[in-house]
Amino acid sequence: MRDLDSIVAALRQFVAERDWSQFHDPKNLAMLVASEAGELVAEYRWVRGDEADAHSRAREPRARIAAEVADVGIALLLLCDRIGLDLTEAIADKLAKNTARYPVEKSRGRADRPT
Amino acid sequence: MRDLDSIVAALRQFVAERDWSQFHDPKNLAMLVASEAGELVAEYRWVRGDEADAHSRAREPRARIAAEVADVGIALLLLCDRIGLDLTEAIADKLAKNTARYPVEKSRGRADRPT
Amino acid sequence: MRDLDSIVAALRQFVAERDWSQFHDPKNLAMLVASEAGELVAEYRWVRGDEADAHSRAREPRARIAAEVADVGIALLLLCDRIGLDLTEAIADKLAKNTARYPVEKSRGRADRPT
Amino acid sequence: MRDLDSIVAALRQFVAERDWSQFHDPKNLAMLVASEAGELVAEYRWVRGDEADAHSRAREPRARIAAEVADVGIALLLLCDRIGLDLTEAIADKLAKNTARYPVEKSRGRADRPT
Repeated sequence: MRDLDSIVAALRQFVAERDWSQFHDPKNLAMLVASEAGELVAEYRWVRGDEADAHSRAREPRARIAAEVADVGIALLLLCDRIGLDLTEAIADKLAKNTARYPVEKSRGRADRPT
Repeated sequence: MRDLDSIVAALRQFVAERDWSQFHDPKNLAMLVASEAGELVAEYRWVRGDEADAHSRAREPRARIAAEVADVGIALLLLCDRIGLDLTEAIADKLAKNTARYPVEKSRGRADRPT
Repeated sequence: MRDLDSIVAALRQFVAERDWSQFHDPKNLAMLVASEAGELVAEYRWVRGDEADAHSRAREPRARIAAEVADVGIALLLLCDRIGLDLTEAIADKLAKNTARYPVEKSRGRADRPT
Repeated sequence: MRDLDSIVAALRQFVAERDWSQFHDPKNLAMLVASEAGELVAEYRWVRGDEADAHSRAREPRARIAAEVADVGIALLLLCDRIGLDLTEAIADKLAKNTARYPVEKSRGRADRPT
């Protein structure tokens, strides 16, 4: 994948050129994440689970799904940039916590994910 | 930020060790994105917009917000990995479309974002 | 079902006793709807589509699902009450629009719902 | 407000005429609730909290907000009907639990809602 820092730099320029940072307080950006996540989930709501992989690779739905995934990613990076949070560091921290929280021997093959 | 590819590799290992990929069809992962986005928005629902920046930097809420942001990021990366989508490329594509869709002269300083 | 007006009256009293209406501007209540909807979707994210009906009737998940459904309903009614919107009238209006938008002969048995 | 039972009867007829119940398993309907909630939150994401009441009563945004509120309500009622849950009873049960969970003397005027 590309360098996230250059993506964030491009996002900053996009927002600055439009003077939109005045609307981008963290509360509003959290709402943006949620509304874009709603659009992503809409792409799958009538798709059967066992057809969701094929659906995700068919040309037309894939283009829409990629756009919705991107919108969630953009919203998340805008929020991280606004509050000075390093997304990859936050993910690494959370993954370490999850590794401790869901021991392999207890959670293997279980959807209920006992902690 | 860290290298996204190494983050994805760590996520893959986490999932493989727990044999959870059987639950991770794209539909379920889209639902995961939405439910984690719901938890993120919950962190801000009673916070005033003009206090949201300070709230995001205060120690206790910041730790919770970082964890929720990470959960959304993890869900999004799991979905991208499942469907073979390069998140950064999808974001770059969408940003190019948004740049054309929201001309600077029409959208500058406007929350209604005329296209 | 019970009378919605008496439910709304009970919600008003609950909020008034706690002096919470100061937090309940329509923006915050829309966020409440979204965060509760996220919790509802979380109840189904690892459940197979063809097992979702049975899951919804099994004792333990049903109690959780009922609580999440109620939380979404409460949030929606609080928002309607705040902005002076009659929920049942809004639904009747939307259903009339949907009936015109999705003609039976075009949409019958189709998940893609052509308009 | 109107009688919820008659609203539900109209929804049933709408779905039956289009043979859509095949797509309406509870998992898919939970996703519908979440995606519609995302559209509702989108109506408020760039609106200031202290302008959200006026925004909700201005003609154009109000029509859109009413439609989104209705969509969430329809999705919730479809889910309740599918799983045989009485929405008003579920709300009354939850409100009783919330009344016990948030004692007036501890929660009065507090956004953090200590339990």
